[in-house]
This record gives sequence, structure tokens and C-alpha cells, in this order.
Amino acid sequence: MIDRVLATVDQRREQCLASLKEFLRIPSVSTKPDHRDQMIRCANWLADQFRFATLDVQVMETGGHPAVVARNKPVAGRPTVLLYGHYDVQPPEPLELWESPPFEPTIRKTTAGTDAVFARGAVDDKGQVWCHVEAITAWQAHGGLPINLVCLIEGEEEVGSENLERFIREHADSLRADICVISDTGLFARGVPAIGYGLRGLVYEEVRLDGPSHDLHSGGYGGGIQNPANALVEVLASLHDKDGRVNIPGFYDDVVPLKPVEREAWRALPHTDAAWAAELGLREHDLFGEPGFSTIERLWARPTLDINGLSGGYQGPGAKTVIGAWASAKVSMRLVPDQDPKKIQAAFRKAVLDRLPRGVRATFTMDDHVARPVVTPIDTPATRLAAEAMEVGFGVKPTFTRSGGTIPVVATFKEVLGVDSVLVGFGLPDDRVHSPNEKFDLDCLWAGTRTCAVLYDKLAGLKSVR
Amino acid sequence: MIDRVLATVDQRREQCLASLKEFLRIPSVSTKPDHRDQMIRCANWLADQFRFATLDVQVMETGGHPAVVARNKPVAGRPTVLLYGHYDVQPPEPLELWESPPFEPTIRKTTAGTDAVFARGAVDDKGQVWCHVEAITAWQAHGGLPINLVCLIEGEEEVGSENLERFIREHADSLRADICVISDTGLFARGVPAIGYGLRGLVYEEVRLDGPSHDLHSGGYGGGIQNPANALVEVLASLHDKDGRVNIPGFYDDVVPLKPVEREAWRALPHTDAAWAAELGLREHDLFGEPGFSTIERLWARPTLDINGLSGGYQGPGAKTVIGAWASAKVSMRLVPDQDPKKIQAAFRKAVLDRLPRGVRATFTMDDHVARPVVTPIDTPATRLAAEAMEVGFGVKPTFTRSGGTIPVVATFKEVLGVDSVLVGFGLPDDRVHSPNEKFDLDCLWAGTRTCAVLYDKLAGLKSVR
Repeated sequence: MIDRVLATVDQRREQCLASLKEFLRIPSVSTKPDHRDQMIRCANWLADQFRFATLDVQVMETGGHPAVVARNKPVAGRPTVLLYGHYDVQPPEPLELWESPPFEPTIRKTTAGTDAVFARGAVDDKGQVWCHVEAITAWQAHGGLPINLVCLIEGEEEVGSENLERFIREHADSLRADICVISDTGLFARGVPAIGYGLRGLVYEEVRLDGPSHDLHSGGYGGGIQNPANALVEVLASLHDKDGRVNIPGFYDDVVPLKPVEREAWRALPHTDAAWAAELGLREHDLFGEPGFSTIERLWARPTLDINGLSGGYQGPGAKTVIGAWASAKVSMRLVPDQDPKKIQAAFRKAVLDRLPRGVRATFTMDDHVARPVVTPIDTPATRLAAEAMEVGFGVKPTFTRSGGTIPVVATFKEVLGVDSVLVGFGLPDDRVHSPNEKFDLDCLWAGTRTCAVLYDKLAGLKSVR
Repeated sequence: MIDRVLATVDQRREQCLASLKEFLRIPSVSTKPDHRDQMIRCANWLADQFRFATLDVQVMETGGHPAVVARNKPVAGRPTVLLYGHYDVQPPEPLELWESPPFEPTIRKTTAGTDAVFARGAVDDKGQVWCHVEAITAWQAHGGLPINLVCLIEGEEEVGSENLERFIREHADSLRADICVISDTGLFARGVPAIGYGLRGLVYEEVRLDGPSHDLHSGGYGGGIQNPANALVEVLASLHDKDGRVNIPGFYDDVVPLKPVEREAWRALPHTDAAWAAELGLREHDLFGEPGFSTIERLWARPTLDINGLSGGYQGPGAKTVIGAWASAKVSMRLVPDQDPKKIQAAFRKAVLDRLPRGVRATFTMDDHVARPVVTPIDTPATRLAAEAMEVGFGVKPTFTRSGGTIPVVATFKEVLGVDSVLVGFGLPDDRVHSPNEKFDLDCLWAGTRTCAVLYDKLAGLKSVR
């Protein structure tokens, strides 16, 4: 049967691409309040696609953007697979750096000479969700999936899945599964597929410092009062040591040291700092981060603090001699086991408040944009079956990797549903996720879809414990 | 004669206000390249007003925005007065904080209960230029001014008068005068008129740090590279000590210490920190600056460094987990005698470059936005005559003050033309210069116009040394 399913997958490439482009044309930017209509439109569009694949579908309220929940008719005794993905995307800004408009998907050559579809969300995560939809459609054309499938495709991953935990708790009974499959990560490199077994957690903060009640002339008032922008850089700068370590009391307290076996395995990966830096327009010497760790170790297994946005005063062309009444920063921290997001958030806020100079007040405006870090076991039947599927899909045995990114729901699934996740991702390191000119290589789209088709076949061999 | 001139001034209030509103409606924002047409329109409009007052006028090229030069028919033996002002204004942003649109001048009550005209440029400097135009018009209606007058109204004061020094050097012969009059400062307080005798200098810098070639996912790359925003706050924070002193080697080397007699005079001024802070929505305890000096001393006689703009990463609503490819800051330094702007600019750049962490490159994009600080003698005949004029205009003897602001041309006039400037300003401390809801009290407009009319009469008594 799997051969016929794969043949169907291979024959439907034109249709696959046409549908993915439709998906990508919907600007489902979850962080922008004025995009609410587009979020609903996107959820409904996706629900229709699951209906075409003969699944039962509901577009469900979450309190935020809706979630699309789809399932096939369950057959007793079969294992249940929970598929998680997200239909929301990052903001496309800065728009002027896109070679083709972010919501007009365009096929063109990559710098590596491969063909790819360029669009916001191409790989994160619409393209990867689409691999699954195509695989499901092919299976349904051949008598149906060999497993019980529940799909949960949410619309708030890029804003920290703020409402998803409550949603999962409220619908725990109908979401319970033997294994969760997530395709929202990537290959280690072109030709080096990977099964992910770790994700960093996240605390996203927005802090604003307010000083005088209105903007002031920097000549008339400079030297007399605290300038909120001066104060902001002072506080933000204090959050790192000179060498790049995070300087917040208690920040590293719960960090689990790297295991020698992991460090050794990672050293064997086909990575050089020089090539990695060159991809970013940097020299090897430019690379910077916490001392005592390799680049891969810093990215996958060490926590960070990064300013993601900085605003204050006059930002237009030319000069304005003004002391802005306020200045603000968006700051994200990536966490590793066993850091607790709420504890880190509290430590961050305490550090900011403790170091606040006289004359400004601090406000924190994001409370729930947090995610726990997670590392999953790699020696489970599901992981072995996923590796076999990936080998069929990509023609190469996968390696095992962690990721610097965050998928907030993984920790929630484990905690609330008791379900482990297997991370089977199809992106490439040069896909420019969250950046202008995001893309998804067509080779990855095809291999990913084949992997999904085989994965559902393989997972039928899992023993259901439900 | 002066009584008839003053009577004319008093009778023409309606016309005065109507014309000033026309002047204020032209959005002559010199720093914005796309406002070039408005600058030319404003210069031509102003030239027409001088023509109505029967002066000879030229709109002259400067290499940047044009300068308006107007003069009466000189009479041998009379002293020559150079009137300097500017028709350009600061950007109006942030627009949403204006109670009425910045370029639709509106008359309404101030928080002090007085009537004022609210608009960008109302007091800085269109309203004050207009006091002179009205006074000149009144004199011309009564047989002409008793002095030889040369008016130089430029369009680049708010961008550092970049082209003016060369312009003055090229036209030195036709600009030479016995005294320069400038109305671009203010009263010390409502009811406390002041003659200004000192201005701070200025160095305005824009520094941009570039890191990776494109924006990056903060999960995928955070910890592996230098984040330009992290680097920027580190460098900027290093430019101050904890106590608010500027931390740039050599910054204070050439600062002339405050004279005890000045400190004593300033202590006698009707100022309390509590009231000054309350005007800014702050408590007295919030005031902050270099230790060892009073607020007035810090504002008038001590140098500063202030961030005037801060940009980097994602600044839209909500969250974006991005490491921006660059981050930038606009920074201004106010200077006092005998700091040299070019020396300070070099010291600033050296400090930034010396402290730049690995992985980012710095670019400085403003070279000529500098001005020398100036302190003029207060015991000259011109200053005495100006004080007498102000007493007639405002009904109170003026005090003598310095200002924290900068009028770049004052130092240039002294150096190139050998001419001292007398600063006769009509603004109030709560005029919100450079801020939203800038205004000019109508009482100040009337008293200022009367002062100008009397000042031209008084200055006729100066001995011409030309």
C-alpha cells in the first residue's frame, strides 16, 4: 500500500504546489491585531483542505486565534498520532529587503542553485504542515490512514502559544495520543536529515521606560533630567557580561550541564564555524557568545538573552535634538533544561527594576509569552520509526540534533497529555526563517511529503497504550 | 516717533496673527529630504513679507536650503544691525500627541490660562522672527527704520546650520554689522524677561552597528553571533558613568569652570527644582545629572551626552523573535566653553570604536552637524540698550541668563564677522520647543513685537564702528 501512496504523492506535485501557494498567500501574521480577519480566513481555508482529505474538522475558539482540529474516523486498537503544526507566521518586515513580496509565493533558484518557493511562512510552518496534508490526502485516496490521526494546527505559535495550554487542558480527552509528530524544525544541513530531540524554551519581554511627560528639547533640558533612552541602554547593557554571559542573578542556576556524550556527538556533525559564519555574511572571527562552548553548543544547549527590538526618540531621517519621553525594548531569552520560564521572567524583571536609575519608571507589557525548554528521549520506538521514515523520504539515515528554536507546545503535551513529541523537520539552515526571503526548497517539500506518508505507515506499528 | 510705531504695532494685532498663521502652515521641516519643496515655498513666502515691508530681498542659494536676505536702504553714519533667525522647524513627530495638527495653527488656552498659538515652529523660531517682521513693517509705515538693517533668515538651523558658515564667509562684506540681534531663546519664566549671554554648542552623531547580512531567527542563531542591538546598548551605556558624567576620555578637558559670580547670580533666579520637575510630570527626586552642580548649572554651563533616537530589530506591535541585522542611535552632545566640537566628535567616535565588541561594524553618518559653544559679554552698550527695550516691551527689567540650547551661527558671526550677538528671546519655558504642542503665548508675541520696535530705536544710538 505504501508504494501506491508514495506514487500518488509523487504524481500530485503540481497540485501540491498550487495549494501550498494558496496557503502562503494568506497573510496570517498572528502578532498584528489588525490581521485578525486574515487569521480566521487562514484557519477556515486550512479546515477546507482537511475536509477535502475526508477528515472531520472543527475550527475551534481558543480565546485568541482559532485552532484547526481535524481527525479521521478512529479504528479501535490502532495507535493514535497527534499532529501539531501552526498556520500563523512571523511579521514580514522589513518589507524592502524581500526580493519578491512576502505574500506572493514565487518559485526561483536559491543561492545553492536549487529550486525553492519564497514566501513568509514557506517553511515556518505552512510548507511543513502542507507535507502532512498532502500525505494524508494520498492515504485517504487509498482507503484511509493506517493510524488514528488527530491534527491540531494552531494560530498562535509565533506569539508564544499563549492560549494553547488552556485549550489543551480543556480538550485533553479528545487530544490524547500515543505520540505527537511535529514538523517545524529542519535538516542539519543539505543532505543531512535530522530528528530533533531538544528545543529551547522562551521568555519574551517588552519593557518600556517612561520619564518626562512629553518629549523635550535636548538643549533646553539635557543634563537636567534622566533621559529614558540613556537609562534603557544602561539597564539593557547590564544584562550581559563583557564576555557574553547573561548577567541576571540566578539565570544559570538550573541549567543542566551538557553531557560529554552529546558534546562528542555534536563535534562529529558536518559543521565548520567558517562556513556557518560565511552564510551570515560574517567572518569566523566575528562569531561571539558565551565562552567555553562551541557554536553548536551555544545554539542548542545554552541559554541566551537577545534584544529583538529597540525604540526611542526620533527615528526618522536626519537629526532631531529631542529627549524622548519614553524608550522601549523587546527582549527574548532562550532557555534550556531545567530553567523555568516564570522563574527566569521574575529574575529578569527584578534585575531591570533593581538596576533602574533614578527618574524613569519601568512597565512590562508581556506576561504570558513564555515556553518551557524540552529534551525528549531518542531511544524510543517512535523515534526509531521516524528515523526509518526519514531515511525513505530523504534517502539518507538521519542524525539526531537539538534546536535553538522554541515550540512552546512540546512541553505542554508532555505535561498535560503525557505525550512525547518526535520532531521530524524538513527545513534547511539557509531558509531564512523569521527573516526576509524565507523559502522552502522544493526538494525538501517532496522529500518531506514522502517522509510523512511513510511515517504514518511506520507509526501503525506502534503499540497503542491508550 | 517710537510712540507712533508702537501704536501701529498695537493696532495691527489681527493682521500680525493672520500672517504668522500663514507662516506656520508651511511645513518647513529642514531635516526631511522630501520636504525640500516646502522649504523653498517657505523662503519665498517670507521674502514676500519683507518686500511688503519695503525691504530689498534676495532668496539666496546656500548649497542646502535657501537663506532669505533682506535689507533697507542704508544711510551713511547709522549703525548696522544684523538680524538673524530661522524659518525651518523641527519634525513634528510623534504626531499622535498633538492636540491640534502641528501645521494647522490653533489659538487656545494654555495650562496657565493664557492664550497661545499652537503649532510646530510657533516659538522656534517663526513666531519670534515674526515679532521682528511686524516691528520692521511698523517702522517702514512711519518713514523707515532708524538703523541700517540686514536680515539673514536661514533654513537649516534645526539641522546644525551646515551650510551657513561657508555662506557667511562668502558674503561677509554684505553681512558685516555693528551688532547681531537674535530672538530664538526665551524669558526665564512668565513675567521674568531675560537677555541671553551664553549658548551651548552641539555635536550631533548618528552611529549604526551592522552585524549579520540579514535579520536572523533569535532561536536559530541567538548565542552564536553578536547581536547588533546588544552591542549598541553596551557601547552607548559605556558613554556615561553611573552618576551621569560623560565617560569619554578628554570630554571635560577644555571645560571652563563656572565662575562663583555666575553661580551666585543663578542661585538668585526664581527657580525651584520642584516646580521645574512638576512642569515635566516628574518629582524633584527624579531629577538627574552630573553631581556637584545645580539644575540650572547643569543645563546652562555643563556639557551633556543624550541619546536622541534609538532603532533596531522589530518595533511593531507584539513579538517578533528576531536578531536585527543592524541597530542605530542618534546621539547629541551639548558643549560649553572651551570645548571644541571637532575634537569632541573625534573623541566620541574613538570611544565608540575602542569599545566596539567583536562581530559588528560601526558607521558614522553625520559629519558637519556641529556648533561651537558661546558666551558673550553682558556689559556692552548693545546689551544695555537691549535690556532697556525689553523693559519697555515687557514692563519689567530683564535678567541675564544663559541657555542650554544651541544657535550655531552665534560663534560663526563672532569668528567670521567679528560681530557680537545679543539674544533677545520671547519664548516661555513651557512652550514645548521641539515637542508636540509647541506654542507661543500671545502676550509674548505682543510684548516681543513691541520690544523689537523699541530695540531698533534704541540701537540707533549705537556708535557705528564700520
